Amino acid sequence: MQATPDNATFSTGAREFLNSCRALIDARLDQLIPQEAEEPASVHAAIRWSLFAGGKRFRPALLLATGQTFGAAPDDLLRTACALEMIHTYSLIHDDLPAMDDDDLRRGRPTCHVKFGEARAILAGDALQSIAFQTIAEDPALPPALRVQLISEIARAAGTPAGMVAGQSLDLDAESRNATKAELEGIHHRKTGALIRAAARCGAIIAGANEELPPITDYAVNLGLLFQITDDLLDVTATAEDLGKTPGKDARSRKATYPALYGMEASHAQLEVVYQATGAALERIHSSTELLRSIAEFILERRA
Amino acid sequence: MQATPDNATFSTGAREFLNSCRALIDARLDQLIPQEAEEPASVHAAIRWSLFAGGKRFRPALLLATGQTFGAAPDDLLRTACALEMIHTYSLIHDDLPAMDDDDLRRGRPTCHVKFGEARAILAGDALQSIAFQTIAEDPALPPALRVQLISEIARAAGTPAGMVAGQSLDLDAESRNATKAELEGIHHRKTGALIRAAARCGAIIAGANEELPPITDYAVNLGLLFQITDDLLDVTATAEDLGKTPGKDARSRKATYPALYGMEASHAQLEVVYQATGAALERIHSSTELLRSIAEFILERRA
Repeated sequence: MQATPDNATFSTGAREFLNSCRALIDARLDQLIPQEAEEPASVHAAIRWSLFAGGKRFRPALLLATGQTFGAAPDDLLRTACALEMIHTYSLIHDDLPAMDDDDLRRGRPTCHVKFGEARAILAGDALQSIAFQTIAEDPALPPALRVQLISEIARAAGTPAGMVAGQSLDLDAESRNATKAELEGIHHRKTGALIRAAARCGAIIAGANEELPPITDYAVNLGLLFQITDDLLDVTATAEDLGKTPGKDARSRKATYPALYGMEASHAQLEVVYQATGAALERIHSSTELLRSIAEFILERRA
Repeated sequence: MQATPDNATFSTGAREFLNSCRALIDARLDQLIPQEAEEPASVHAAIRWSLFAGGKRFRPALLLATGQTFGAAPDDLLRTACALEMIHTYSLIHDDLPAMDDDDLRRGRPTCHVKFGEARAILAGDALQSIAFQTIAEDPALPPALRVQLISEIARAAGTPAGMVAGQSLDLDAESRNATKAELEGIHHRKTGALIRAAARCGAIIAGANEELPPITDYAVNLGLLFQITDDLLDVTATAEDLGKTPGKDARSRKATYPALYGMEASHAQLEVVYQATGAALERIHSSTELLRSIAEFILERRA
């Protein structure tokens, strides 16, 4: 396989794939989450406000992509994919709270606590986490042994010491002083990396491709870094309209970011390094990895 | 069986049982939760502050009691019991937050956000929920089919529309106006009742006593009401030293409580009604229910 992809073709492939995934995921999420009309309306409205806010559904799409790569049927993948998006959305709701990152705007509209109050935002996030694990536990398409493996994988990626909550806590620690490069990596591997890694691994697990877990994990770890570095760069270069949230916020709050620690040029160089690493990992996989390659390419192009 | 128990004997039995459960649960929880020395130390310290604050471990003890009643081995029950306590503790941490019930004191010491800050308290609660489901998903003592049934049961009891988060949301709704008696029941069945019900049911499920689920559920629903009404009464009559938290708080925040809606005398009468109902439910069970009866008696006596 070529390490250098044909950009136009691949990114088109990823864009179309992500769009079709988004439709599938949105429809299934709508079935899995109580309607606003159901009591207690306030918490269901708050959940739906944040869950249906035009998210890109990147993590569930990645799960569908790895699952498809290794031959799983979409029906076997969808519930776990939705659960991942619920976990991701709960973390956004809680991260936006005044006591955490204090963000008023997300995806171009008021954040959950601005719209529904802090108490409802806390509860909406809490409920989303419960529903996420319930969704996998009750998946009729998968045998129980697979369901518990997926719940374990996602719970570890969401929690502590190696998961998302641990990353957010380390990130808050780092605000009060200058983080080292090693600390920055430790934060990102947990805060964004762990869930992206879980997404890729869960697709392979559902497909029964356990022997492909080492290379798919390497791919996902580097894809997570690619995602985080482009995010950090966009925070510096993009406008509020592009982002749907306040740009430059990381620098003002002294967040540990790649541009802050390495500078813009070295961050761009780092992007290329991790992008090449995604390709190298995919070359160790025994299925056609065109889709996974095009997803990495698509993320790389976000920096523009 | 007699509906009227021998108070002295039974309450001694329950007290001893609860004490021995507490030691078992505390030891296992200590193994399941990362140590404070492990990074990120701040969030692990916050989790441990709240989890090892001298809680009575009532929900896990109830699970051990029903499991034991139907013949399950303690080793099969302990992880799920610990997971229930993690869910309960996460809910206390989040409920105490300034945006929620705004409590500074819990079990005689500063609440999690007072001690560690709001951000850490939110994260500690979030992580506890993840670890709870991870703990069951990875239980080596139980077959996967049983683990997913337990996760489903507890996730539904914790979430929405019928679980704890839904109850807390309805409770907040009720603060701005006078709740009806039907609304009060709806709040309590979700806010405290759902997890107590799940505790009793999970013990029976692990023991394989699925045919006993209807009476054990009736017992637990009434035990939950017994627990809630005594809690409401204690808030009116007890001192801060007795409670380990600020008494009279419910009335000041216009919480929907039994004394507020029914008055003290009718609340005491209601206690007797639900206590008798626990006994009636136990008479339908085909095992020895002495321990479960003594637990109901023990809760009833809390009002003194």
